Amino acid sequence: MQEEEYMKLALSLASAGKGQTSPNPAVGAVVIKDGEIIGMGAHLKAGEPHAEVHAIRQAGSKAEGADIYVTLEPCAHKGKTPPCANLIVENKLKRVFIASLDPNPLVAGKGISILEMAGIEVMTGICEEEALELNEHFFHFIQNGTPYVTLKAAVTLDGKTAAYTGDSKWITSEESRMDVHKYRHAHDAILVGVNTVLTDNPLLTTRLPRGGKNPIRVVLDTNLRIPLDSSILNTKDAETVIFCGSEAKDKSKALLLEKGVKVEQLPSPVLQIQPVLQRLGEMNVTSLFVEGGSAVHFSFLKEKAFQKVVTYIAPKLVGGSQAFSSFGGQGFPSIAEGVELQFTSIEKIGNDIKVIAKPLRKE
Amino acid sequence: MQEEEYMKLALSLASAGKGQTSPNPAVGAVVIKDGEIIGMGAHLKAGEPHAEVHAIRQAGSKAEGADIYVTLEPCAHKGKTPPCANLIVENKLKRVFIASLDPNPLVAGKGISILEMAGIEVMTGICEEEALELNEHFFHFIQNGTPYVTLKAAVTLDGKTAAYTGDSKWITSEESRMDVHKYRHAHDAILVGVNTVLTDNPLLTTRLPRGGKNPIRVVLDTNLRIPLDSSILNTKDAETVIFCGSEAKDKSKALLLEKGVKVEQLPSPVLQIQPVLQRLGEMNVTSLFVEGGSAVHFSFLKEKAFQKVVTYIAPKLVGGSQAFSSFGGQGFPSIAEGVELQFTSIEKIGNDIKVIAKPLRKE
Repeated sequence: MQEEEYMKLALSLASAGKGQTSPNPAVGAVVIKDGEIIGMGAHLKAGEPHAEVHAIRQAGSKAEGADIYVTLEPCAHKGKTPPCANLIVENKLKRVFIASLDPNPLVAGKGISILEMAGIEVMTGICEEEALELNEHFFHFIQNGTPYVTLKAAVTLDGKTAAYTGDSKWITSEESRMDVHKYRHAHDAILVGVNTVLTDNPLLTTRLPRGGKNPIRVVLDTNLRIPLDSSILNTKDAETVIFCGSEAKDKSKALLLEKGVKVEQLPSPVLQIQPVLQRLGEMNVTSLFVEGGSAVHFSFLKEKAFQKVVTYIAPKLVGGSQAFSSFGGQGFPSIAEGVELQFTSIEKIGNDIKVIAKPLRKE
Repeated sequence: MQEEEYMKLALSLASAGKGQTSPNPAVGAVVIKDGEIIGMGAHLKAGEPHAEVHAIRQAGSKAEGADIYVTLEPCAHKGKTPPCANLIVENKLKRVFIASLDPNPLVAGKGISILEMAGIEVMTGICEEEALELNEHFFHFIQNGTPYVTLKAAVTLDGKTAAYTGDSKWITSEESRMDVHKYRHAHDAILVGVNTVLTDNPLLTTRLPRGGKNPIRVVLDTNLRIPLDSSILNTKDAETVIFCGSEAKDKSKALLLEKGVKVEQLPSPVLQIQPVLQRLGEMNVTSLFVEGGSAVHFSFLKEKAFQKVVTYIAPKLVGGSQAFSSFGGQGFPSIAEGVELQFTSIEKIGNDIKVIAKPLRKE
């Protein structure tokens, strides 16, 4: 096998942990000696051993003189576990192949320094793009202190999320709806506006065939209009956080606190997205999945406060100049003032089309 | 080469004529003897020789005992040219391979009968699906007497055709806009509502780098509100037909007739789509390309009077609950009452996505 193939193996180990390692990144490691795989590992949960620990432990005494492929620069700091760079030195590995550097500019390269000081050969940048994408949530969080934001929309081919009557059942196929649950599993928190709670009374939990991790449920509710009998206030499957503005009534707040949910009151009367993201970042929420409605989506759009848009397009036409669309609100006054994206993935899913887009980076 | 490869060659010859043979179908023919191509031909324009004539003429005396591959059943009727089935018999070809039968149920199989009666071997159904698709306009027209209708939309990823202000320049890329001109070239007529004329004052001509055929310009204008200084009334590049309702004013009609355009007044005060299609069919319009606006699109949707929807999706988000979408009008009251489609093609075009969908055929 070639270097790239070993790294791809390490990446596939890493991706197994995706969505369950937060606030840590997903990392995979493979130890190779004389063309044979002698150790493999992945980080699976914060507080548990890092990928390198598992892989080197499996290699045992054979690790001496071996190569290790690791998807992220080995750590140089003592956290809940001792630094992995030191572990590699102690076990006398010969060469270290790294896909992506530590995203934290304050510590990037420190792991590599420890390795090189000990005379270990270090090669970087193999499959870097895949490694960056695998941990895009984590990298964004480390560099910005706010969660990586993914906006989700499910629309008909004519761009409707609901008919003019509000009816929206069902636009997309079973396969697309299951895919949404995978995104919920892979995110730390899920966010909706209070109108979505009032209209759909959703549970906002992850319902995959074999379970899945429930993200924190976040509701933007400026004036605390959320009904006390809402499903999300009366189920304990996931933590719930309600954001409200400065003019929300103390009485409403007290009633919600009694329900066991968190209420985050922000100092402005109208909720702005950036302060919400700041607060979520302080709560160690590294990734946020926004499921609408259309006014909330436009709030994120207006502040350009998102990193990804996932759109499911169903093979249906429903029409209606008063029907609902994925991004509503006031809207930009001209196409030129809109937000430019780039399509990064287009695929068929069930009978639908799934499109992934990211804000266009001007080169 | 195999049978299928010869037929694919005949199909590629046929497709060269696509869009310029109306009201005839596009047809290609290849004559083969001892594994060698000895004649090729395509029908290029109504009134000019059929594909078989060109191909057999090229083969000359070598045609005797040869095979001919033809994308459509050779004709059995004497039209502007003598029947091709007889030509094949006279030139003593040995075998005839046919992709698709004559779509007219009254004459289907008659060409084959002439051939078989003369002792010629006939094989049908090779690459039939491609052949049907190549002439889908013609087949639909022959079987229904009304044009094949393609609806076009150019939208942002959030389904907008214009910002709330009406601004729509430009949503899609240069490549997509050029692709639209290819569709114009390939259609007999292009249709818009009068609102599109009032808003955009379009020319509705085909502007490809090397020219192209201009389709007939059709405007739905119930009360003849079209301004007399509109571009389409003052350019002679293409024929123009205005449809109006029974209550349109005679004065307006007279002014338009003076401009040299055709005015088709229908007997109902509100324009319905089916009678318009009937009238266009009587005018030998085999294919109609509908370019909106959103109210017109919904009229076609409501009456399920379309065979194809081409949607260009641009990597932009513009938002706005009052922004414009591709299918407006009243809309269906529920998703379940909407029209189900199937996606037949999804591709990148420039920076955009091009999606082709057709009404779902329930099996």
